[in-house]
Amino acid sequence: MKDLESLSATQAIKALSKREIKATDLLLSCLDRIGQKESVVKAWASLGKENALSRAKQLDKGAFQGLLHGLPIGVKDLYDTYDLPTSYGSPIYANHYPVADAVAVALLRQSGAIILGKTVTTEFATFKSGLTTNPHNPKHTPGGSSSGSASAVADFMVPLATGSQTAGSIIRPASFCGVVGFKPSHGKVSIAGIKSLSVTLDTMGCFGRTVEDVGLGVAAMSGDHRLAKIEVLHNKPRIAICKTSSWPFAQKETATALAVARHAAERVAKGTVIDQKLPKTCDGLTQAQTRIMISEMSRSLTFERVHYAKKLSPQLLKQLSEGAEISYEQYAKDLSLADKSRAAMEDLFNNEVDILIAPSANGEAPLTKDGTGDPLFSRAWTLLGLPCININVGTGPNGLPVGVQLIAGPGKDHFLLSAARAFTLALPDPTLRDQA
Amino acid sequence: MKDLESLSATQAIKALSKREIKATDLLLSCLDRIGQKESVVKAWASLGKENALSRAKQLDKGAFQGLLHGLPIGVKDLYDTYDLPTSYGSPIYANHYPVADAVAVALLRQSGAIILGKTVTTEFATFKSGLTTNPHNPKHTPGGSSSGSASAVADFMVPLATGSQTAGSIIRPASFCGVVGFKPSHGKVSIAGIKSLSVTLDTMGCFGRTVEDVGLGVAAMSGDHRLAKIEVLHNKPRIAICKTSSWPFAQKETATALAVARHAAERVAKGTVIDQKLPKTCDGLTQAQTRIMISEMSRSLTFERVHYAKKLSPQLLKQLSEGAEISYEQYAKDLSLADKSRAAMEDLFNNEVDILIAPSANGEAPLTKDGTGDPLFSRAWTLLGLPCININVGTGPNGLPVGVQLIAGPGKDHFLLSAARAFTLALPDPTLRDQA
Repeated sequence: MKDLESLSATQAIKALSKREIKATDLLLSCLDRIGQKESVVKAWASLGKENALSRAKQLDKGAFQGLLHGLPIGVKDLYDTYDLPTSYGSPIYANHYPVADAVAVALLRQSGAIILGKTVTTEFATFKSGLTTNPHNPKHTPGGSSSGSASAVADFMVPLATGSQTAGSIIRPASFCGVVGFKPSHGKVSIAGIKSLSVTLDTMGCFGRTVEDVGLGVAAMSGDHRLAKIEVLHNKPRIAICKTSSWPFAQKETATALAVARHAAERVAKGTVIDQKLPKTCDGLTQAQTRIMISEMSRSLTFERVHYAKKLSPQLLKQLSEGAEISYEQYAKDLSLADKSRAAMEDLFNNEVDILIAPSANGEAPLTKDGTGDPLFSRAWTLLGLPCININVGTGPNGLPVGVQLIAGPGKDHFLLSAARAFTLALPDPTLRDQA
Repeated sequence: MKDLESLSATQAIKALSKREIKATDLLLSCLDRIGQKESVVKAWASLGKENALSRAKQLDKGAFQGLLHGLPIGVKDLYDTYDLPTSYGSPIYANHYPVADAVAVALLRQSGAIILGKTVTTEFATFKSGLTTNPHNPKHTPGGSSSGSASAVADFMVPLATGSQTAGSIIRPASFCGVVGFKPSHGKVSIAGIKSLSVTLDTMGCFGRTVEDVGLGVAAMSGDHRLAKIEVLHNKPRIAICKTSSWPFAQKETATALAVARHAAERVAKGTVIDQKLPKTCDGLTQAQTRIMISEMSRSLTFERVHYAKKLSPQLLKQLSEGAEISYEQYAKDLSLADKSRAAMEDLFNNEVDILIAPSANGEAPLTKDGTGDPLFSRAWTLLGLPCININVGTGPNGLPVGVQLIAGPGKDHFLLSAARAFTLALPDPTLRDQA
């Protein structure tokens, strides 16, 4: 079998479970692809080739191990791995070998996944980018902070890779790279063993090339194996478009993407898809998210600021100072706004709508020299803790991918996957359809 | 000045800030006390004498550093410290030196605290006890899992020490050792850099000998410096006694403690103190907490189970198996019950009551051979995420301390401290009063 690296995770695992393909061959295909493309894409902070190969051989010989038996995956270099260096995107931790795996990594391995390597993250998952380029055009950013994971999956180097989102670090890179990015409900995947920016916001998830694949990934990472089996939608879901208060910042391609999404959603909903504003309570949520994030960051990175200030980038140091300037009163007020907004959104999802569709980013991936893009369109959803998934719906003026995000009510991760799958199948361009 | 080790944290810092005493002398007094008592109490997993002394000298020479300038503190050995071994109470991690401080530890140091050493915790903060004894009677347990911290503070080895609570590991040892234990709102203190059992439940807090002291501690650990200044209660608080559904397990001394507490509460409330049942929604919360805890533990300790099963105690392995047996459906149902119960409690605190008073434990500290005691009376409060504080109200038939816990509404940590201080002053026995 050729081109194993182009199989989706779901396809690969099906073939692996029937012993039609070998984990070793799948891994070698991925390594081949990395060999061809890494010098341009620069998705990897480190590769664990030898360990991965011996693990693959073991799995090929042994019994079927679990959900991800024999699947090579990439792990964002913000997650602790005991056998691969874990730098958190910072020179402070170059060559740091953690004493244990992050909980999510241990669960991935337990389900039979092969950790192929660590993918590049921005500095402590903030805004100073690594070297990774966008596989669709190396002059453009893959987005951040989960840069390497999004690029590696988009470029067929690996079928699945982990990410994390504190502002917009799963949804935005997924949109920029044209892959599926799944940020499940806040707290669904344990944050233990992941370098923390903001416990209130940090949310773990993953990238894949199909909706099924990210369901599989989060099923293994969280232990909620129900997510590995996506159910067919039986009822007509109530879907609405939510442009959000950040709409004035959306570029033309984002408006087009939302129009395309509306048509597909109408097919899924078998009826009209209305526009839905966020409840009045949610006003100011985007600004609150920014303040909560930098306020918590200024505390979370205290050790690094005290011991290694010279190894922090000037832009991060500036953010830490800004965060330290925010009064605890303001921070507490912002947390309280978030609590009230979560309750208002729960009401909205109970009474009005099942799925919201919103922009994933301002537009196409900007040029690398202009940064990793703006998480503006994800900040509020992250603070609300709602499950979100990015689905590519087309390309922009530069031929780069543009996605939209589907958002479900609190804890409705499983339903979100069902809706996202139906949505993908309803998209006009068959090449964009779920291939699983 | 003699007996510096018997000063409360608040008294010590007042004297330190006026340069009436030296951090070095305070530290030496604590070390003296440890020298005299440690062979029996066994509160310390490790001591960092040299580092602590050089830090004390530095602080004596330099400008006033912050809230905890020059105060020696103990850190539960579940918190990462870069300069002291961090074993999490497990032989797996004997001599492990983390690469960075836990966020709370970095914040403590930043506020001028001197980390004197690491205090004994049970195995991964679960139920297999360490060697620590109860300073009131070495045949009895100090409680767990924050055994060393509670004992060290009770025995005047250190004025302040950190703890963590997943079931009842701050409130119970505080009650058993007769000190003030403060479990602030869930999420108030960052869990980053603390070995995780259950992200849903793990809550960081501290032990002190006065209400002011634990306010100071959590102020520094969280960055919420408002907690360092306890306000006088101006209005009459609505206080109620909440015996909880676990009341049948309360021993006689706990009933007496609650009666004493009622009288003191009546003085604070300037009126009758009623009995308050938990809302019907909260039925089953204690059982839900147990399932959530062991279900999350079975995932959190995957790495250790896979790599070091032989170094885990049989009782922990058994708990991990039991946790793995709980279906995700059940776990999700329990989380959902917790969400609904939190909302019901918010309503209760908005409309009916300001402070609840409940048992801290079944009774006095049991004999060491019978384990570390039962967290039964704390499980529901921990899952609810409400701020709780243990106040000693007397002694039981064996002459060992018995406390009650005061509980406030969500996020009302500051108010809880005010109420607890007023409550302490209203207690009949002046020797039990807040000395600050």
